[in-house]
Amino acid sequence: MPFLCSCKNNLENYCPKSILTYGAEYHDGSITYGGYSDTMVADEHFVVRIPDNLPLDVAAPLLCAGITVYSPLRYYGLDKPGLHVVVVGLGGLGHVAVKFAKAMGSKVTVISTSPSKKKEALENLGADSFLVSRDQDQLQGASGTLDGIIDTVSAQHPLFPLLGLLKSHGKLVLVGAPEKPLELPVFPLLQGRKVVGGSMTGGVKETQEMIDFAAKHNLKPDIEVIAMEYVNTAMERLLKADVKYRFVIDIGNTLKATTS
Amino acid sequence: MPFLCSCKNNLENYCPKSILTYGAEYHDGSITYGGYSDTMVADEHFVVRIPDNLPLDVAAPLLCAGITVYSPLRYYGLDKPGLHVVVVGLGGLGHVAVKFAKAMGSKVTVISTSPSKKKEALENLGADSFLVSRDQDQLQGASGTLDGIIDTVSAQHPLFPLLGLLKSHGKLVLVGAPEKPLELPVFPLLQGRKVVGGSMTGGVKETQEMIDFAAKHNLKPDIEVIAMEYVNTAMERLLKADVKYRFVIDIGNTLKATTS
Repeated sequence: MPFLCSCKNNLENYCPKSILTYGAEYHDGSITYGGYSDTMVADEHFVVRIPDNLPLDVAAPLLCAGITVYSPLRYYGLDKPGLHVVVVGLGGLGHVAVKFAKAMGSKVTVISTSPSKKKEALENLGADSFLVSRDQDQLQGASGTLDGIIDTVSAQHPLFPLLGLLKSHGKLVLVGAPEKPLELPVFPLLQGRKVVGGSMTGGVKETQEMIDFAAKHNLKPDIEVIAMEYVNTAMERLLKADVKYRFVIDIGNTLKATTS
Repeated sequence: MPFLCSCKNNLENYCPKSILTYGAEYHDGSITYGGYSDTMVADEHFVVRIPDNLPLDVAAPLLCAGITVYSPLRYYGLDKPGLHVVVVGLGGLGHVAVKFAKAMGSKVTVISTSPSKKKEALENLGADSFLVSRDQDQLQGASGTLDGIIDTVSAQHPLFPLLGLLKSHGKLVLVGAPEKPLELPVFPLLQGRKVVGGSMTGGVKETQEMIDFAAKHNLKPDIEVIAMEYVNTAMERLLKADVKYRFVIDIGNTLKATTS
């Protein structure tokens, strides 16, 4: 019974019997539609309470991007005030990672391939510093100074420079999913007792904690609210990474328009 | 001051200012000779007490191979009774890893490329089971059942099958040092929140703990004691992995013979 612990210990996301909210096959053979549903029946165990001061549209991306970065910050001990945390990649996941790490009291550095994102990172998202991933001098200057890295990049990318940024006992956490294996240099892991770990969303209990934490810290992802009829255009824009940073479909108003 | 914590917190092995006992350059420019020295002056901070019931020749390999596997078993939480731990590779490091993991109360499986080591692993070292690393059916049968892996292999080898053996939240710890990067499949890390970490020997305080633990549990590495004059032959045999499992040079008797 190797997997029981995840299913019974608020780690439903790692339970091998879990059924995803979207695009998965339910017990009766029907397909789950997630946020595209007009109605949904849920066991109360899986319902998250959204505090009054957190608008529903803002809360929506927290339930995926938010918990995806919040959970590893907690699990890997990167949630202590005064730590220096790096967020690699400034997209849907990365921009909320910056906000959560800042709210937890960390100094936050953003690493991106695009120098053009510097202003956005520092001024709009509140990061403390910014490094261009291909600028070896910049990376070298930050060598051995970091406690942890949340790596949101799904494209192939080298881990060696990132591991070099970590202090001894530092943690590199992957939350993006490159299709092919990445190259793992072993020596930096040994010499600094460093760790490369993964994380995938979070359980229901921790999702509630994350939502409450966000409400308490007035932490809001940056969103663009769209009507359902815009969804195909939104998909095209997503492919071009043309959104800051998440589309949110206003199902309620879309349904109202349909039925009126 | 990113590295101070290791130097001041009993993690001298990760302190960037550390000087290795063997083959390193000392402050005055002289070279350290480690176990080949006939005399040695040491700061008392770096002296480990060997309990009376632990013979010196048996204690010797514990100070390297022993601490190399003991430290990660502790640090990565693989030291709890009832866990199921795998040791990959049955050499100098691997054989003491089996003994420590057993003494900590784990169920221990050995994975080796050589089916011929099965009897040795089960009967002489006390492992609970044995898997051949190239036998996919054997590995498949153990899929998702392990809490942790101590991987002592320095040759290139695939991590994918090892990660598949781990339960969710399991840890793969590398203590061997392959020269080239290994292939790291990311999906297993995400799906099971698994971790790949490294470890390199241990600090002086933990080395004393390890020695005391070994003495208490009557844990002894398997050694072959040789005189200094045999050392070149021993080196040749080492290259052929022809030793069970560590040569120990009897410096005291060698010196006595030389001076008599």
